[in-house]
Amino acid sequence: MLGMERRISRIGAWSACLLAGSVLAIGALPGTALANDGYDLWLAPADKGAAAAEVTVIGDSQTLQLAAAELRRDLTAAPLPVVLARADAPELAALGLPTAMLGAEGYLVCAATVAGRPSLLVTGNSDTGVLYGAFAAIRAQKTGGDLAKLDLTSTPKVRLRVLNHWDNLDGSVERGYAGQSLWDWWTLPDFKDPRYTDYARANAALGINGTVLNNVNASPDTLSAAYIAKAAALADVLRPWGIKVYLSARFSAPIELGGLKTADPLDPQVQAWWKAKSDEIYRAIPDFGGFLVKANSEGQPGPRDYHRTHAEGANMLAAAVAPHGGVVMWRAFVYAETDPDDRAKQAYSEFKPLDGKFADNVLVQVKNGAIDFQPREPFHPLFGAMPKTPMMLELQITKEYLGFATHLAYLGPLFEEVLEADTRAKGKGSTVAKVVDGALEGHDLTGMAGVANIGRDRDWSGSTFNQANWYAFGRLAWDPTLSAEALAREWARQTFGDDPRVVDTAVSMMMESREAVVDYTGPFGLAHLMDTGHHYGPGPWVNDLARPEWNPIYYHKADRSGIGFDRTRTGSNAVAQYAPPVARMLADPRTTPETELLWFHHLAWDWKMKSGRTLWQEMVVRYDRGVATVAHMQRQWDGVKDKVDAERWSKTATYLAIQHNEARWWRDASLVYWMSVNGLSLPEGSLAPEHDLAWYKAQRFPYAPGH
Amino acid sequence: MLGMERRISRIGAWSACLLAGSVLAIGALPGTALANDGYDLWLAPADKGAAAAEVTVIGDSQTLQLAAAELRRDLTAAPLPVVLARADAPELAALGLPTAMLGAEGYLVCAATVAGRPSLLVTGNSDTGVLYGAFAAIRAQKTGGDLAKLDLTSTPKVRLRVLNHWDNLDGSVERGYAGQSLWDWWTLPDFKDPRYTDYARANAALGINGTVLNNVNASPDTLSAAYIAKAAALADVLRPWGIKVYLSARFSAPIELGGLKTADPLDPQVQAWWKAKSDEIYRAIPDFGGFLVKANSEGQPGPRDYHRTHAEGANMLAAAVAPHGGVVMWRAFVYAETDPDDRAKQAYSEFKPLDGKFADNVLVQVKNGAIDFQPREPFHPLFGAMPKTPMMLELQITKEYLGFATHLAYLGPLFEEVLEADTRAKGKGSTVAKVVDGALEGHDLTGMAGVANIGRDRDWSGSTFNQANWYAFGRLAWDPTLSAEALAREWARQTFGDDPRVVDTAVSMMMESREAVVDYTGPFGLAHLMDTGHHYGPGPWVNDLARPEWNPIYYHKADRSGIGFDRTRTGSNAVAQYAPPVARMLADPRTTPETELLWFHHLAWDWKMKSGRTLWQEMVVRYDRGVATVAHMQRQWDGVKDKVDAERWSKTATYLAIQHNEARWWRDASLVYWMSVNGLSLPEGSLAPEHDLAWYKAQRFPYAPGH
Repeated sequence: MLGMERRISRIGAWSACLLAGSVLAIGALPGTALANDGYDLWLAPADKGAAAAEVTVIGDSQTLQLAAAELRRDLTAAPLPVVLARADAPELAALGLPTAMLGAEGYLVCAATVAGRPSLLVTGNSDTGVLYGAFAAIRAQKTGGDLAKLDLTSTPKVRLRVLNHWDNLDGSVERGYAGQSLWDWWTLPDFKDPRYTDYARANAALGINGTVLNNVNASPDTLSAAYIAKAAALADVLRPWGIKVYLSARFSAPIELGGLKTADPLDPQVQAWWKAKSDEIYRAIPDFGGFLVKANSEGQPGPRDYHRTHAEGANMLAAAVAPHGGVVMWRAFVYAETDPDDRAKQAYSEFKPLDGKFADNVLVQVKNGAIDFQPREPFHPLFGAMPKTPMMLELQITKEYLGFATHLAYLGPLFEEVLEADTRAKGKGSTVAKVVDGALEGHDLTGMAGVANIGRDRDWSGSTFNQANWYAFGRLAWDPTLSAEALAREWARQTFGDDPRVVDTAVSMMMESREAVVDYTGPFGLAHLMDTGHHYGPGPWVNDLARPEWNPIYYHKADRSGIGFDRTRTGSNAVAQYAPPVARMLADPRTTPETELLWFHHLAWDWKMKSGRTLWQEMVVRYDRGVATVAHMQRQWDGVKDKVDAERWSKTATYLAIQHNEARWWRDASLVYWMSVNGLSLPEGSLAPEHDLAWYKAQRFPYAPGH
Repeated sequence: MLGMERRISRIGAWSACLLAGSVLAIGALPGTALANDGYDLWLAPADKGAAAAEVTVIGDSQTLQLAAAELRRDLTAAPLPVVLARADAPELAALGLPTAMLGAEGYLVCAATVAGRPSLLVTGNSDTGVLYGAFAAIRAQKTGGDLAKLDLTSTPKVRLRVLNHWDNLDGSVERGYAGQSLWDWWTLPDFKDPRYTDYARANAALGINGTVLNNVNASPDTLSAAYIAKAAALADVLRPWGIKVYLSARFSAPIELGGLKTADPLDPQVQAWWKAKSDEIYRAIPDFGGFLVKANSEGQPGPRDYHRTHAEGANMLAAAVAPHGGVVMWRAFVYAETDPDDRAKQAYSEFKPLDGKFADNVLVQVKNGAIDFQPREPFHPLFGAMPKTPMMLELQITKEYLGFATHLAYLGPLFEEVLEADTRAKGKGSTVAKVVDGALEGHDLTGMAGVANIGRDRDWSGSTFNQANWYAFGRLAWDPTLSAEALAREWARQTFGDDPRVVDTAVSMMMESREAVVDYTGPFGLAHLMDTGHHYGPGPWVNDLARPEWNPIYYHKADRSGIGFDRTRTGSNAVAQYAPPVARMLADPRTTPETELLWFHHLAWDWKMKSGRTLWQEMVVRYDRGVATVAHMQRQWDGVKDKVDAERWSKTATYLAIQHNEARWWRDASLVYWMSVNGLSLPEGSLAPEHDLAWYKAQRFPYAPGH
């Protein structure tokens, strides 16, 4: 090396030169660029100082070994040695623990005397149950639990706890804002990126037990031999962590892959093709979970193309996977360009009559609301309306309509809101949660799906706080009755550490964040006001798209006299799709919750709100409140600058600044447009919009991500 | 948390249960998933055990502080305190160091007595020079140099040492195989990812002083106000590291962005638009480097659309940036669908007559070969043919034609081969290196460009060994006379540490790797044999593409009688584009290097090679050798399994296995096709291809990356 430096020298070297003169010493070593990049999620290793727990495993399954490794890594200063064992281990049989009550995946963690030594026993009826118990013990310690008194039992209330990846085979992710697909399809099945293992660990820690690898707008190639092998490689990585692989199936695959003339579900050749394809998949993935299908929706093929019902389509696929124990998750997100009826009504109209017609291994997957993952929607009328059919709840973890990766919007309260909504299907307390977890109708096959916000970005979800939405979904899928605020606190303690000031600040910001987005994008049940295609930024004026229900004006129906979508008897009568007590409440604007007022009613701009202000005045108040809340989040975050590592703190601070600018943009663009419609002016002292309507209309975002 | 666990319990808890029975203790804690993910590149921090160097800075520039921080982090056990100072520091003035010879960016590192204390002085005429000296000192130590005897002087031989990112504004990277674009255009200019800083550090350590941020197939939006602001934010991050930002400019931007009717370079309005646009850019980026332009090539707009020459187009842009000290890098990679002449001749034919017609601040950027970054090409005939014009060498670091990210192909020998090639333009020793570094014609404005292999993947380049190609380019741009093998050793020691067995193994693998790719993809100057569009895998049979020069058969011209492209007088006479001595050598197959035989000659299958074997027999030998060399690399890598961290070792091992399969695929597909043309059979004992020609033709890769 020195030789080389000499060789490349043009001026030769000389012996040490003498130097005199004073020297200014300057200190301050800049930190390295990467401090805490958020990769660890909620699995941040415990304080290295403390002693690792002594862990013993009864039995030799790989999953138990993984559970032991997690405990050795993250459980510290354990007052007792830890023992991991499945409940059917001979050593435990004699004890007659009431483990049947734990079900297939539940866990029990309690003090016990093992081989004469006081120990902490972690057990369950399956290896996965024990794994969940291990993660529960770690979570308990990290969130302040006393290991000496540890005594935990829990079983999941929902059977299928599934992430939906809208990932395409070319590496792009529809509505993904955290980089490329985590799945490197190109190097699979040969290379198994270590990230796949960390993905599995993070999910297992929450109890997530399934993942749909590919976009619901599915390529038929997903079902080709080459891609089945790739999916099988991922399944091999995920299996020890209790996670099953599912695939989105394109309904017309028998034509595109199989060379058939039709995909008619009643055609024997089509049925045989799916049967053979399923057998092929199960040869590669013996515990394959099954298919997720988006049919006859937004241009996707489906049974209606052959004048068959969704049930006939779903059951055909269900028959193909049934022999292997697979399921079909059939999405109810349908609306037809040909159907002139209120888009919010179409899924109900099409699926309600099919109740009872679906095979036993079919779940109907329903979005939380009847439109499409808006910042706030009333619960979907299908919940409670199909008692004979397992209703799988689909939530969106990625923030397609809530500011992409940059805006801080904790979705726990949104998830909680829909789960706690009372369908009144079987009297008071018939909550969506009880529909989803099967309690209401006694369904055993139950499920919850979350559209993932996971990508190849180093922090997985595009920002630290976005990780909380993945976390909240996973924990709520385990138990839909958990509280959003408690989960925020759980997450914050595992993510930022024990400092109560940081945790309290994070929780406070999270709990006010979602309502802020509702306020600055569209209060009182206004929805679908975003710009075209990329769904980024305001576009309430858009009125020139081919299909009526693609245009924001279709949803707000604002004119000189008023604003809002009349879904009562005088309008589309969508309210009639709800159980009578709910329908009655929603039929009258005075009994309709103000949060959903304009979703169900078209009201005059001077409608008197509960506050005594007119609707218009109150709208302005809300838009202003939304912007002010973001400013408040910024002030709170500034207050913990000295308590959070530099990298996560400053990225979050920068994103909050972006969010504040864009909240103001939403507020100004919306108000200036509403004023162009209602001819009203802003109340005294309210800030004038920064630009005129033409300026806001002129904004273009050809390279918005996730589109 | 415990409270919550109780709340979600269905079976309640009970007091500690008693447990008897034996317990099998099982040890073996699995390692964490991520060991060494390759993020550190050649900047791996020095052994934490050793004491950090004491570093003092004279002067207070940010760059000097950054240099000091690098030394404090990575220079250990320094026998002397280190002093950083610019040569014009008053404290050094009296010493009369011959620093003028260091030029603007050179450095001097030598022992010196400072303020009475023996010290190690790092100096240069600019802050950047000092920074380069600091990195040189660190490199010297990491590669075995003795700090006590350290005495380094070096100045860059090439002025513009530039990476070309073929990155699109939507985050995709043309011919990129390491994930999305490193530039997160969406969150710029607000969020400055810490990775941008580490990117700058890695480049500064090599002496790279410029980066073209966007694809040569440029979007006009790159020059919009919004994207200029984003580029300016990146420039602010890169500036302290001595790196200038450049942009690829779309020639028709005055029409698309400016609303003009024409982009004619002689139109005053067009000239005024570029002048105003340049002024706008320089207001945001005072040290903006200038424009890179791909014009009238592969569908890109350019001056020929208006019947103007490339010189007229380039000079118009050059006039716009000249007042600000900017340059224009004008690519010579042109071939016209309308030109029936040998594609290999077209760039020369079009540019040679323009020598002397370009403005002083224009460089003509020429690919190493006349076609397009093939595993081996003869040097481009333009080198040495335009004495009045600065010839900037364009190399491709990303492996578009050499196995994407997965194949191990160290490009040092390819780069070295072209740099050492003798153009004979001014007699013996008129190497391409001397053309490029300006020595041959006394040009002061000189440059070398490398098409980057950098993406957002954690290891930056898609594999550990791919990092070596970035490294080799950067070091060769500093000094084109460096040896590829020495650079391989330098890189390996900084990447894998001091263990000589690991370093020797890595170097040995690297030095045989590129020739292996030549052997298994196409020996003896065969080129452009890959499949369509994605450029992945063999497609020598392809003959149905719209333009003749898009088809592999255009390049190999194989028929029953022979194979190869006759570029002598009896053919396209491309040899005449070289200086007479070279042209004479290439005119005769017996004097043409066998490595380039079929590039210049169409020869009978039974042509006698120097080995005594026929051409056909020798081709088979080479295909076999290529596959065997990959197997040899695998064996060597297996030999250091215990000496390399698990993560980098196993990813590399997996990629080598992929490469071995694909080398076999290339070999088999090529041979089976050649046999279908020449009707010959394989020599005794040579392995029969795995499949028939139809099978190889049927392979499809719709989701290949980088396409």
